[in-house]
Amino acid sequence: MNGKLVLIGCGPGAIDLMTLRALRRIESADLVLYDRLVNLELLTYVKPGAIYQYVGKRAGDGGRQQTDINLRIREALEAGATVARLKSGDPLIFGRAAEEIDIAEDCGADIEIVPGITSSLAAASDSLITVTERAELQSFIVTTGRTASDQSRPDWVQCVQPGVCVAFYMSVARAWKIQSTLMAAGIPGILPAIWVERAGCDDTRMVSTQLDRLALDAEQNKIKNPAILLLRYPHSLAGALKNSVTSSSQQA
Amino acid sequence: MNGKLVLIGCGPGAIDLMTLRALRRIESADLVLYDRLVNLELLTYVKPGAIYQYVGKRAGDGGRQQTDINLRIREALEAGATVARLKSGDPLIFGRAAEEIDIAEDCGADIEIVPGITSSLAAASDSLITVTERAELQSFIVTTGRTASDQSRPDWVQCVQPGVCVAFYMSVARAWKIQSTLMAAGIPGILPAIWVERAGCDDTRMVSTQLDRLALDAEQNKIKNPAILLLRYPHSLAGALKNSVTSSSQQA
Repeated sequence: MNGKLVLIGCGPGAIDLMTLRALRRIESADLVLYDRLVNLELLTYVKPGAIYQYVGKRAGDGGRQQTDINLRIREALEAGATVARLKSGDPLIFGRAAEEIDIAEDCGADIEIVPGITSSLAAASDSLITVTERAELQSFIVTTGRTASDQSRPDWVQCVQPGVCVAFYMSVARAWKIQSTLMAAGIPGILPAIWVERAGCDDTRMVSTQLDRLALDAEQNKIKNPAILLLRYPHSLAGALKNSVTSSSQQA
Repeated sequence: MNGKLVLIGCGPGAIDLMTLRALRRIESADLVLYDRLVNLELLTYVKPGAIYQYVGKRAGDGGRQQTDINLRIREALEAGATVARLKSGDPLIFGRAAEEIDIAEDCGADIEIVPGITSSLAAASDSLITVTERAELQSFIVTTGRTASDQSRPDWVQCVQPGVCVAFYMSVARAWKIQSTLMAAGIPGILPAIWVERAGCDDTRMVSTQLDRLALDAEQNKIKNPAILLLRYPHSLAGALKNSVTSSSQQA
């Protein structure tokens, strides 16, 4: 008898940004394991007799908590249960989905993933920022300020190119590092950006900024996680900067 | 008297991948304008007396349809109506949101954007493909196979780097162009990829492939739009390829 693991994207925190499918899957689960940023109202959908358990991670516990979660999932799946694993945002965007999928595969359990609204798209919606735009922005990149090790740090410079909008997750504490790395590579300090705190929620807060003020504006406005940083590099801005460089060098 | 424009992300087509907020906003609209890939069941949420109208684009009409949509929106907003503009996926991902936002701003109307599940995340969920993964994949890129002009074509080569998963939208007809451009730049042909047709829906269809077979597998399997192409370049694969090159050159 093999169980079923359902990884459920719960969106950025507002209950009404959940999908109908996510709610249905919570209702049919025997065990519900939920993360820190998940809206607790969701628990009203848990069926009578099912168990729910908070498994939010503490920062800096050296991964002990994830090991505990993995054990709990394995135990339940081996007993034939349906496990709903509630994750904030989308399960596949910085949700540590891979390890939990591995466990389910190892147990021979069924696996389903229910996609969720990822915070960066909620942040863009709140701020009416178009992350793609005909002739201006053809790619949208989701990346992170924080990684497990320096070796696996994303190449931010490679990300921030004309025609691209970049969303940085987990970036508040890394604002200065992001700003200085990009500017050292010659990326213009006037690129428009915005900090969006608590995207998609009633108490969302937005602070417009630009590349050379990322850290200062985050600090002065006391931006706190969970927050998303959106940085845009439209082609027209790249063109205008190029022309202004050409015309100043001609004047010189 | 100013109206309100609500751009609503309806997800990739399955009705149960709609958010609760999207359904509530449809219920309160006076005019509902919907696109081609939107699930028609949604129209049961339109309130009595409200008007709904199909405004799906025909390919190759030179943008005439979008001009008509824009006029219809302007007219309704100026009459003080609440206009729900239903878009497949997320409104900000290749949804031509910018022009419609401009109209609402120009009319002094309120604007709200309701984010939706974008097809690439539904595609990744269907295929259990992790688009980010600790130590393996730190960035997820959404880009397009088709653009308004060649000048605005995204730099695919810049996108496909170790540590990145790339989702190509509107790419079926451009499969050969994507494959040949990337391979000409030295990107390894064995990069794992998958075609996902009708992501998130009951009749979704997946075809595993790899970079040097993108076009062939699309053709042999008759992949049709709407389809998403996911291409992954995990760090471990980049490392293994580098080692194999080093060891063959040592043997030579």
